[in-house]
Amino acid sequence: MVEAPAVAVIFTSTRAIGDDVAYESTADEMVALAGKQDGFLGMTSARDPHTRRGISVSYWRDEECARAWKQVAAHAEAQRQGREGWYSEYEVVVAAVTRSYSSRK
Amino acid sequence: MVEAPAVAVIFTSTRAIGDDVAYESTADEMVALAGKQDGFLGMTSARDPHTRRGISVSYWRDEECARAWKQVAAHAEAQRQGREGWYSEYEVVVAAVTRSYSSRK
Repeated sequence: MVEAPAVAVIFTSTRAIGDDVAYESTADEMVALAGKQDGFLGMTSARDPHTRRGISVSYWRDEECARAWKQVAAHAEAQRQGREGWYSEYEVVVAAVTRSYSSRK
Repeated sequence: MVEAPAVAVIFTSTRAIGDDVAYESTADEMVALAGKQDGFLGMTSARDPHTRRGISVSYWRDEECARAWKQVAAHAEAQRQGREGWYSEYEVVVAAVTRSYSSRK
């Protein structure tokens, strides 16, 4: 579990109807690529296949690392494809983690 | 879309196998109840039915409002049921929103 200090990037999106194969392939590549970036602390994602609404949260050491990931070339290209077709809408909220807790049984 | 300043409460969970009817009913009640709380700014949720992993993000005016919601009696009871059976694991990350942007087509 991520602990403060950290930066959370909350990506909420609705998948447009269309090319699921290319989308899924690129999404998997982006998860793998994010994991190799400096300051990457973790990522968690969920999408409801009926509403096509999804949330991905990535955690970063600091704001600079989060911004650097946004600029990585392959990620910038994936963002372009996301804007142009894969998502009917999306929003990004960036937030500074202040506290966290978990329960595991 | 939420804008800074705001507080994000990121709730990530795995649903245990079991009573989906009571869980769904209570989850719907909690969404409705959260919407009535002082300082509530919005909520978004997604769960993958295959992995049973879900993410809900609620947004609040400030930390005090987020903490007050945690203490609301019906919500505290729902949290107890969550800990005791509905979730096999969960984590909560609280973060202060610093910036946000969106794209709508």
